[in-house]
Amino acid sequence: MTIENISVNKSFGGWNKQYTHHSEALNCKMRFAIYLPPQASNGQKVPVLYWLSGLTCTDENFMHKAGAQALAAELGIAIVAPDTSPRGEGVADDAGYDLGQGAGFYVNATQAPWNRHYQMYDYVVDELPKLIESMFPVSDKRSIAGHSMGGHGALVIAMRNAEAYQSVSAFSPISNPVNCPWGKKAFTAYLGRDTNAWQDYDASLLMRKASVFVPALVDQGEGDNFLGEQLKPEVLQAAAKVSGYPLTLNLHEGYDHSYFFISSFIEQHLRFHAAHLRD
Amino acid sequence: MTIENISVNKSFGGWNKQYTHHSEALNCKMRFAIYLPPQASNGQKVPVLYWLSGLTCTDENFMHKAGAQALAAELGIAIVAPDTSPRGEGVADDAGYDLGQGAGFYVNATQAPWNRHYQMYDYVVDELPKLIESMFPVSDKRSIAGHSMGGHGALVIAMRNAEAYQSVSAFSPISNPVNCPWGKKAFTAYLGRDTNAWQDYDASLLMRKASVFVPALVDQGEGDNFLGEQLKPEVLQAAAKVSGYPLTLNLHEGYDHSYFFISSFIEQHLRFHAAHLRD
Repeated sequence: MTIENISVNKSFGGWNKQYTHHSEALNCKMRFAIYLPPQASNGQKVPVLYWLSGLTCTDENFMHKAGAQALAAELGIAIVAPDTSPRGEGVADDAGYDLGQGAGFYVNATQAPWNRHYQMYDYVVDELPKLIESMFPVSDKRSIAGHSMGGHGALVIAMRNAEAYQSVSAFSPISNPVNCPWGKKAFTAYLGRDTNAWQDYDASLLMRKASVFVPALVDQGEGDNFLGEQLKPEVLQAAAKVSGYPLTLNLHEGYDHSYFFISSFIEQHLRFHAAHLRD
Repeated sequence: MTIENISVNKSFGGWNKQYTHHSEALNCKMRFAIYLPPQASNGQKVPVLYWLSGLTCTDENFMHKAGAQALAAELGIAIVAPDTSPRGEGVADDAGYDLGQGAGFYVNATQAPWNRHYQMYDYVVDELPKLIESMFPVSDKRSIAGHSMGGHGALVIAMRNAEAYQSVSAFSPISNPVNCPWGKKAFTAYLGRDTNAWQDYDASLLMRKASVFVPALVDQGEGDNFLGEQLKPEVLQAAAKVSGYPLTLNLHEGYDHSYFFISSFIEQHLRFHAAHLRD
């Protein structure tokens, strides 16, 4: 494993960095961002919050816009933000913003032409944490969070790997992708028309049948244009009731789907994760 | 005066908005952003911090990346961010990032072709505050701040209009533009070769001869690539010593010229302005 540092910015006493590396899982060059809080410069191994971004985003959006570093520095948490899909000239793409590059949906694609590179589930679950834990002064305590498509990814990954994550949180997640336009389009392309192959990538279906729990926090703006058609947090909440899943869902009047919403409540998410990463 | 609202995002209980309007001073359509804290929705008239951005920026960079809304909401301060130059197809431009659109330098241009639109000094000093104070629930208490080219603008505007501003602050300002490459290039183009016309746009020259004071705070990263050649805070500090100007200059090891630096210390700037806006 080799990684190449491509940017360094001091931030709240810690360091915001970007790296590129060759991903085995994705079969292409990938970029990720990491925020290392000041505690990591003092010989301390810090826990890691993985952040999965939404459609059209890269590793940069969260690090530039969420205002998370202030709290990560205070709480001593590293943040790792991968890109949202494989990228590059040889990587399959689509004209839509909601399929292909920038829209990997955190699944392992089984259908051509996507299956050659689009293995974001394996990348986020296995390859990236292994790389982070071998290259940086971090502990093996992990939490995971995300926004929209990334909220879907975070919930699915935490529920399918409950032993690997202390907590999970999401802003405005695509909560029931098998039953919304974004999810149906992406899953049909990446996983095929047989909807049986979709089930393990749907947060609501997973939550309904869960028996091992990861503490979960979801925040959703009531002024979000995508709420009714694409996000469906009420389906997630109903699923949590069935299984007794420890889900806290907060609705917020007037807030939309943007980083203005995320930044307004990121402090609560970081404090939630910090409490579980300390356990 | 008419203004058109083009975006609304709830943020920390307040509202982040963008507007367009026809500027008389600049003779073109302009866009600005305003953050209205929650107090402004409760019938309270809030004071205003004007933020002037740096080269290549628009009204959006500060609102998206500085993380200022959390504190503005807590302290009850509105923030107004104008664009950094006139814009549009009919507006003179240059191939360089440091002249023309995105690089207005907050001066009133006297030289063709720039003088037709580039009157950013008048826009920021007169037209914009008049518009803001007539259209929004704000008081007439103002402070001003900025970054790099905008730090230069904020210092110059505050010193030349000491009665109009309670306080001024800057991150990494171009402190002595008559004596650095960015300043010489822009002032030659906008103001002509006679350097006598440059004097009233140089923060260090103004500070050296000042007799009326606006409390001033400057933060500068020591890892800033532009520090030695373009920014020269030591010239500003020497000028403050001559006139006894109330300038606090803080140097920060390792920080660079980016918004990662600004976001790390924006809280201190907002608290500084809040203390003076309360007076």
